[in-house]
Amino acid sequence: MTIFFLLFYRLRKMKMSGIDKIKLPIDTELKEFEKYFRDSLKSDIPLLGTILNYIYRTKGKQLRPMFVFLSARLHGETNENSQLAACSVELLHTATLVHDDVVDEAYERRGFYSVKALWRNKLAVLVGDYILAKGLLLTLEKKCYRFLHLISRAVEDMSEGEILQMKKSRRLDIDDETYFEIIRKKTASLIATSMAIGTASVTDNDEIIEEMYRIGQDAGIAFQIKDDIFDYQDKGVIGKPTGNDIKEKKITLPLLYVLKNSDSAEKRRILRLIKRKNKNSATVRELVQLVVDKGGVEHATQKMNEFINKAITALNQFPESEAKSALIELMNYITTRKK
Amino acid sequence: MTIFFLLFYRLRKMKMSGIDKIKLPIDTELKEFEKYFRDSLKSDIPLLGTILNYIYRTKGKQLRPMFVFLSARLHGETNENSQLAACSVELLHTATLVHDDVVDEAYERRGFYSVKALWRNKLAVLVGDYILAKGLLLTLEKKCYRFLHLISRAVEDMSEGEILQMKKSRRLDIDDETYFEIIRKKTASLIATSMAIGTASVTDNDEIIEEMYRIGQDAGIAFQIKDDIFDYQDKGVIGKPTGNDIKEKKITLPLLYVLKNSDSAEKRRILRLIKRKNKNSATVRELVQLVVDKGGVEHATQKMNEFINKAITALNQFPESEAKSALIELMNYITTRKK
Repeated sequence: MTIFFLLFYRLRKMKMSGIDKIKLPIDTELKEFEKYFRDSLKSDIPLLGTILNYIYRTKGKQLRPMFVFLSARLHGETNENSQLAACSVELLHTATLVHDDVVDEAYERRGFYSVKALWRNKLAVLVGDYILAKGLLLTLEKKCYRFLHLISRAVEDMSEGEILQMKKSRRLDIDDETYFEIIRKKTASLIATSMAIGTASVTDNDEIIEEMYRIGQDAGIAFQIKDDIFDYQDKGVIGKPTGNDIKEKKITLPLLYVLKNSDSAEKRRILRLIKRKNKNSATVRELVQLVVDKGGVEHATQKMNEFINKAITALNQFPESEAKSALIELMNYITTRKK
Repeated sequence: MTIFFLLFYRLRKMKMSGIDKIKLPIDTELKEFEKYFRDSLKSDIPLLGTILNYIYRTKGKQLRPMFVFLSARLHGETNENSQLAACSVELLHTATLVHDDVVDEAYERRGFYSVKALWRNKLAVLVGDYILAKGLLLTLEKKCYRFLHLISRAVEDMSEGEILQMKKSRRLDIDDETYFEIIRKKTASLIATSMAIGTASVTDNDEIIEEMYRIGQDAGIAFQIKDDIFDYQDKGVIGKPTGNDIKEKKITLPLLYVLKNSDSAEKRRILRLIKRKNKNSATVRELVQLVVDKGGVEHATQKMNEFINKAITALNQFPESEAKSALIELMNYITTRKK
């Protein structure tokens, strides 16, 4: 009996992956957060089902609340305001996920939506707006104007980033500078906000809040580069189809590097292949292979590591603590995760 | 020459319709507003064209800024904050119009969207989010937290109202209470907010701000009832197709009244007709005629007048002024407008 128990315990411990270990020091905060977050979405009207369903479906690793709580712990003791901070960030994140669903979901029907899908589309827009407003109202009610400012700035950045991406990706005239502007706005801004808002929940020190924002921004850029690299990696390793970005004519860092380092004839050939409508899987495979062979993934990995190392170096200026170690582990997790 | 001039002047004066006359006392404010509003949407990224195009297309009578400025003038002197108030309300209104476009626009293609329309859909969501964030940031930057609170509450109400309508209208189980809850939230809340926020730009008196909110709410309910009546009126009088709500299985006050006052056999027959997919125009005409004949429009008109009279009576408690007269005229305009 004891042997079984020990074996079970050992297996459980072995199963505890990187992310679970990082969560350990903020276990209490995360558990409390579950409740806090659910409560924040209570409504008199019976749309809760729809919203909870969305959240259940989109519930990921809760990286953003982790950033909030660990940043708070790095600079003080977590408190009720830290919960509020985590909640407002997660509500914003959820709202954007819901809004993302508006178009992403149903390209499968050869570019046509059914009426039912359209109806869901409209609901997604409304539910997204509702969640967004809820997040803002929450911070307003508690009179946390500093939080509100950070959150609103993030909303602006994220929508600007997405719009910029849509504009640029259509014309295929994106350069390094624009690529970094897009990912800084659409992805990094929310991770930056998470770290800043977590910090703001325990200190009024503007300098430290700003510094944490910058660290989060670098981490967020690394996070998005990692995501972009996934599209050029073997399907066995990651969970999503390879070459998705190429299929959608989305030019990210690995491909950008290859375009920059090709002669004009080859560049024309690559762009012609990308522009092709209804690319078959052979074309996509060819392009993916080309980007890997020409060092695009290697270059992107190097850039990603530069950003994450900058973030880790900046974190290292703070005194040793459990929270600091966990934050650094979280940075490492971002760039080594398998999905 | 003088005769021509006089004639021209007289014609011009005759041409000045109700709404133009109401605008006269706040002419300066509205002119300044044009500039203020445009400036509020300036952005570093080149999406301004898309947004300005939306605004140009959706630019209506600017009723909401009118409510803001007239309410401000009723209780004090308009100032920079009144412009901010009008701008944040109009930005919110624009954002919701942009988001409304997501589904409403393209039912024409037998319920199917083209890829291009879908792409625009996504852009509409993002641009709407962006405008929403801009409106909130504007009030945040000026530290007008009272405004922000009013605006956020309106966002919550409006999305709740729209969601409630979508849920209920599908099941055709709407009653009077739900109908009024829907229109109070989806339409009246923004007109209420306009009057409250305009007032808040010139006074801190909570009681007066609340009272103006209530007046705006009653006016907003009357406004929406008028809109709902339009669907049962002759196409010659108004600008939009008759029976649209019936086509979309949307039950509003005129029809609600008729359902309530029909015996169960007739009620079943009406609901069967409404539920019919691909209703032909004869069915729609029959239902419209039935609602008119059974006194649905008359009842709705009576209700509308009750609400607007309540609003006017409440306004009458304030001392006589140019602003008060204009506001009362605006109330009358709401219920007598031809489109």
